[in-house]
Amino acid sequence: MEKINITLPDGSVKEFDKGVNAFQIAESISGRLAKEAIAARVDGEVKDIYAPINSDSEVAILTFNDEEGKHTYWHSSSHLMAHAVKELFPEAQFGVGPAVDTGFYYDIDINTNLSEEDLPKIEEKMTEITAKDEPFIRQEISKDEAIKLYTERSDNYKLELIDGFNEDEEIISIYKEGNFTDLCTGPHVPSAGRIKYFKLLSVSGSYWRGDEKNKQLQRIYGVSFPKKKMLDEYLEALEEAKKRDHRKLGKELELFHITPKVGTGLPLWLPKGTILRETLENFLREEQVKRGYQPVVTPHIGNIELYKTSGHYPYYSDSQFPPIKLGEGQEEYLLRPMNCPHHFQIYSSKPRSYKDLPIRLSEFGMVYRYEQSGELNGLTRVRSFAVDDSHMFVRQDQLKDELCSVIDLIQHVFTVMGFEDFTTELSFRDDNDEKFGGDIALWERAQIELKEAADEMNLNYIIREGEAAFYGPKIDFMVRDVLQRKWQLGTVQIDYVMPERFDLLYTGSDGEKHRPVVIHRAPFGSLERFIGILIEHFGGYFPTWLAPIQTVVIPISQNYFEYSEKVFNELKEAGFRVEIDKRNEKVGYKIREWENQKVPYMLILGEKEQNSENLSVRQHKIGDLGNMQLSEFSDKLRAEIKNKVINK
Amino acid sequence: MEKINITLPDGSVKEFDKGVNAFQIAESISGRLAKEAIAARVDGEVKDIYAPINSDSEVAILTFNDEEGKHTYWHSSSHLMAHAVKELFPEAQFGVGPAVDTGFYYDIDINTNLSEEDLPKIEEKMTEITAKDEPFIRQEISKDEAIKLYTERSDNYKLELIDGFNEDEEIISIYKEGNFTDLCTGPHVPSAGRIKYFKLLSVSGSYWRGDEKNKQLQRIYGVSFPKKKMLDEYLEALEEAKKRDHRKLGKELELFHITPKVGTGLPLWLPKGTILRETLENFLREEQVKRGYQPVVTPHIGNIELYKTSGHYPYYSDSQFPPIKLGEGQEEYLLRPMNCPHHFQIYSSKPRSYKDLPIRLSEFGMVYRYEQSGELNGLTRVRSFAVDDSHMFVRQDQLKDELCSVIDLIQHVFTVMGFEDFTTELSFRDDNDEKFGGDIALWERAQIELKEAADEMNLNYIIREGEAAFYGPKIDFMVRDVLQRKWQLGTVQIDYVMPERFDLLYTGSDGEKHRPVVIHRAPFGSLERFIGILIEHFGGYFPTWLAPIQTVVIPISQNYFEYSEKVFNELKEAGFRVEIDKRNEKVGYKIREWENQKVPYMLILGEKEQNSENLSVRQHKIGDLGNMQLSEFSDKLRAEIKNKVINK
Repeated sequence: MEKINITLPDGSVKEFDKGVNAFQIAESISGRLAKEAIAARVDGEVKDIYAPINSDSEVAILTFNDEEGKHTYWHSSSHLMAHAVKELFPEAQFGVGPAVDTGFYYDIDINTNLSEEDLPKIEEKMTEITAKDEPFIRQEISKDEAIKLYTERSDNYKLELIDGFNEDEEIISIYKEGNFTDLCTGPHVPSAGRIKYFKLLSVSGSYWRGDEKNKQLQRIYGVSFPKKKMLDEYLEALEEAKKRDHRKLGKELELFHITPKVGTGLPLWLPKGTILRETLENFLREEQVKRGYQPVVTPHIGNIELYKTSGHYPYYSDSQFPPIKLGEGQEEYLLRPMNCPHHFQIYSSKPRSYKDLPIRLSEFGMVYRYEQSGELNGLTRVRSFAVDDSHMFVRQDQLKDELCSVIDLIQHVFTVMGFEDFTTELSFRDDNDEKFGGDIALWERAQIELKEAADEMNLNYIIREGEAAFYGPKIDFMVRDVLQRKWQLGTVQIDYVMPERFDLLYTGSDGEKHRPVVIHRAPFGSLERFIGILIEHFGGYFPTWLAPIQTVVIPISQNYFEYSEKVFNELKEAGFRVEIDKRNEKVGYKIREWENQKVPYMLILGEKEQNSENLSVRQHKIGDLGNMQLSEFSDKLRAEIKNKVINK
Repeated sequence: MEKINITLPDGSVKEFDKGVNAFQIAESISGRLAKEAIAARVDGEVKDIYAPINSDSEVAILTFNDEEGKHTYWHSSSHLMAHAVKELFPEAQFGVGPAVDTGFYYDIDINTNLSEEDLPKIEEKMTEITAKDEPFIRQEISKDEAIKLYTERSDNYKLELIDGFNEDEEIISIYKEGNFTDLCTGPHVPSAGRIKYFKLLSVSGSYWRGDEKNKQLQRIYGVSFPKKKMLDEYLEALEEAKKRDHRKLGKELELFHITPKVGTGLPLWLPKGTILRETLENFLREEQVKRGYQPVVTPHIGNIELYKTSGHYPYYSDSQFPPIKLGEGQEEYLLRPMNCPHHFQIYSSKPRSYKDLPIRLSEFGMVYRYEQSGELNGLTRVRSFAVDDSHMFVRQDQLKDELCSVIDLIQHVFTVMGFEDFTTELSFRDDNDEKFGGDIALWERAQIELKEAADEMNLNYIIREGEAAFYGPKIDFMVRDVLQRKWQLGTVQIDYVMPERFDLLYTGSDGEKHRPVVIHRAPFGSLERFIGILIEHFGGYFPTWLAPIQTVVIPISQNYFEYSEKVFNELKEAGFRVEIDKRNEKVGYKIREWENQKVPYMLILGEKEQNSENLSVRQHKIGDLGNMQLSEFSDKLRAEIKNKVINK
C-alpha cells in the first residue's frame, strides 16, 4: 500500500497508509486524543475527522480546546437543533445556521410563534437524537442535483443560497445525520452523540439575509459543550452576566436612559451616570495634562471636504450619517465620523518648529456612526460616542519614546480599572495589499519601533500581518470581561498618510519643511462602550472614587435626624458624594434598597451612635464594619478615593 | 387766535397759539433747550421740530441725550452723507440709509469701488454742505407723484420701495436739503448745520434688501455728534475696542481658530482657549452643584418629533440646520436648536413625586443655529454654541424661592466677572397677542412672582409688556461692554406650556398627578458669546484664575536654567499654569512678548535671585513688584485664584 508522510504540529513526521483519516492518526497518538477529536486541520484547512488523506500533509487534530474545534462542535450542534426542530415542526424551512463566538444559532421558518417556553421541547428532541448517535455523512453533489433536491422539498431559502453558488468553481456538499439533510460545507463532528451537553438560550426575530425587506424568521440561539462542568460554568457565568448586564444595571442604578423619542443609539446620561462619565474623563484628563497633553474642544460637525481629504468620504459613507446641505448646496457638513481632521486644523493654525514637537492635542471628541437600529445595543453599540482621542504630532526621532509613553498611560489606565488580564495585538502591513498607503521604508521603520516599544514596555502581544490601518501600523489592547468575552479597548496607531493628505508641516533644525508623524490613540476607545464594559466589569459596584453616591446616611428614626444631618453636612462639606435617607421606612428596607443601589458605604445612625458621636459603618457586600469616628471614616474614604481602591 | 394746551413731560400745561411748533415751545422753556432741540415727541410720535401743532398735545422736546433725538440726528446725518456722495458721484443711486444703534449707514450704488481712503473726500464734501446750513424741508406727495419723480431720475431702488407702499394708507413724504431730495418718513434735524462732528468709519458690501440674489451695493457706515468731545471719546473708545476685539485677541492669544476648512461659525478651541472655556465651565458647574443642580449629558441631535412637540419645528426651521434623514426617510434628526426636550426626556425617565422637586438638570448643552455666513462674527455670532443651560422642574409653591435662587446665582456670576453695571428687563405677556399660550391665571401669578423675586433680589429692572417668550414671562440680564454696547447675557424664563406639550408630571401630596413648572435659565447665555465678551471686557488680561498661563519663568541667561527649572517645577507641582521661556533671546524681548500675551506674572531669574533663592516678580501692566520668596509668591497666586481677583 502506498505510504504518505504526516507532519504533526510538534514537527514530528509519521508515515501512514494513503487514505488514512485524522481519527486514525489521533488514535496512533493517544486513545484520549481520538476520543476528544472533533475535526482536523489538514494543510491549513479544517476537515471532517474521517475524511481520507491521500498525500503528504501537515495535520493537526482539533478538539474542543481549539477555536476551530469549538467552531465545528457548535456548527454540528446547530444541525442537531435543526434536526430536532424538523421532527417537531415538519413544515420547517431553514435559513442559515452557523457557529458564533460562543455557541450557535439557526434561523428557521415555521408556522408556530416560538417562545422561550418552547425551547425545552426542542432540547428534549435533541437528546433523543443524540442518543441514536447517527454519524454526520458528507456527500458532494452537483449544482443541478442540489437544485433538484431542494426543489422537491420546496425549500426556497436553500434554493436561493444554491442559486448564488458558482457551478464551475464550487463543490456543493450536503451533510446527512439520521434522516436530516442539510446543505453545508462542513466540517462536522463524527456523530450526533458527540454533542453531549447543550442549552438553547433564546429565540428572537431575524430577517432573512439581514434585510428588513425580507421575511422575518425565528432565530434560536444555543450553546453546547463536551463536558457538563463546562456547560454549568458557562450558564453560571451567563446568569452572572445577566445580573451584570449594563443595560439592566444602567436602568436600576439610573446611569443612562435610551429612548426612541430622542433616538435609538443616543444615550441620555442621567445625573448619576454623568458623575461616572465626568469622573472618568477627569481622571484621564488629569493624567494626560501631567504627561504634557493639551486639551482642545472642536465642533461635532465639519465641512465634508475634510473627510474627502482624509479619504473617509465617500468610501465609508455607509457607516456615516448623511451629509447636511446648507443653503443652495454650496456647503455640506458631516456629523464627524472621526476627530482627526479637526485636530489637524488646529495643528496647522500656526507654523510649527521642531522645538515645538511633540504636540499632543487631546479631546473627548464625539463622533457619529450610522449603525442600523437592529445593531444597536445599550452603550456598547451606539450612534454617537466620545472617543478619548489624542493626536500627537512627533518627529520621527521622537516616535519610539512617544509610543512607550502612550503604552505606559494605557497600562496605567487598565491597572487603575482592574483590567489586569489584557493582551495586545500589533497589526502590521501586508506587502501584497494595495490598501496600505505611504512609503514602505517608513512603514518598516514604524513597525520596528512599534515592536521595540512593545518589547520595552513588556507587552504580551501577537502580531497580525495585514491587519494594520490603511495609514499605518497599530497596537490594539484587548481586555476580557466576566464572560471571558474579548473587548477591544485602547488603540495606538501610527500614521504617515494623513500628514501628507492634510499637508502637515514643521520647520526642522535644518530650516527645511518636514512632515510630522501622527499618532492616533485612545485608551478607553469609546467612552460609552468603555463605561458599558466597566458597569459589567464591576457589576455596578464601582470603586469609591467612581461611585456616583459614595456613602449614604441612614437615621434609624426621626429622633436621629439632627445628628444624621450633621454627619451628612460634614461629609458633603468635605467633598464626598453623600446622600441622606430620611424616608419613613424601616431600616432593613432602606439597607436592602441601598445595597441594591450598590453604594459602597452606609452609615446607620441611632441612639448608640448619637450618644458616642460616631458612626456604624456598613460596607456593600461585606456588611457591618463596626463603629468609627467620623474623622476615621472620612480618612478611610479619602484614602480609597486617592488610591482608587477596588473593593471586592 | 385759537389756543391749544401743551402738556410737558413734567406734567405742566402751557397754553400756545394753535399751529405752534416744538421749536417755539422749546424757546419758551429755555434758549439752550431750543438750541439743542433736534425733534419732538408729539403725542407719542416723533416729529420735525418745525411741524405745526394744531390741537392739545403732550409734547417732549428731544435732544441728542434722548434715544429718539440721537436717532433723528444720525438719520439726518445719513442724508447728509448721501448728499455728499451724490455731489461727488452724480450717477449715485441709493438703497436705504437708516440710523443704527450707534451712528448710521447708507447703501449706495455707484460705478466706483470705494475703499476707506475715499471716505475723507466724502467727509470734506459733507463739511462743505453743513457750512451752507440748508434746512431739511418736508413735502408730502401722492404715490403717483412719487413714482413720477423717481422714474424721472431712473431710481429703481426707490421705485421698488414706493411700489411696496399702500396708496390709500400711507402718506409719502420726501425731504429736501439743499439740492438733495430723498424719499423719507423723517423726522429730521432742522438744518444741515446741526450735524457738527462726524466721521465715516467703514465701507463694505451689502446686498439690496439683504438678499444674496440681488445686486451688491456699497454700505458706508458713519457716526456723528453735536460736540467734538463726544466724537473724540467715541473714536477713542472705538480704538480701544479695536485693540480689544475678541477676534484679534483670540488670534494673538491663541484662544480659538475659525477656518472655512472646518466651517464658518464653527470655532476650534485652541489649547489656551480650552483652558479658559473649561475653567469657566468648572466654575459654574461647581457653583451649581453646591446649589443642588445635577449635571447631565445629552446628545447633540434629536428625533425631529421632539421639536414638533415643542413647536420649534417647522416654525423656526429657517434658523435651524436642515433635518438629517436616516434610512429611507423613516427617521429624521435635527442638530438640536435647544436642549429642553432632551432634559424633559430625562425628567420623564422615571415617575416623580412632589418630594423630589425641585429637580435641577444642568448641562453645557451645545445647540445649533443656521446663521447666514454673512452674519457670523467671531464668537459672538456662531453656528454652534454651548448654552450653560438648566431646566428646573418645580412646584408652583416653590417658584418664587427658586427664582430668587437663580437670580442670586446670576448676580454672583456677574460679580465674579466684574460686570458690576448690569440691568434687567422683565418681559411680560401682552393680553392682546395670541402667541402667548397657556392659562392666563398662571401667567399672572408667574408675572407677580417674577416681579416679587426681582424686588426681593433688589434688581434694577424695567418691564417690557408683550416681550415674553411664547411659553411664559422672563427676566433678561444685560451688561455693557467697553463701547457701552449692551449685551444680553443671562436669561430666566418661566414655562407653563412645555410641561403640557411634553406631558410632564409629578405625583402630589394628594396622590394626584400635577404638572411641574419649568424654569429655563442660563447665566452666561451662550458660552461662546460670553467668552467673546469676556475677552473684550478684560482686553485679554484675564484674572489669574482664568488666565490660560498664570505665570512664566524667564531665566536671564543659560546660567540660571537650573534654578529656573526648579522654580518652574515647584509651581507646576503646586498646580499653577506655568511656562518657562528658555529661548535664546534677550530678556527685554521676552518680557515684551509675554506682556503682549498678557500673562499676569513674569518671574525674572538671574544671579541675584539664584543666590538669594528668591524671585523677581513682574506684574502685567504694572511692572516690577520687587523680590519675593517662592512660597510668598505661591501664596499670593493661590489667594488671587481662590478669591477670583480681577487685577486692573
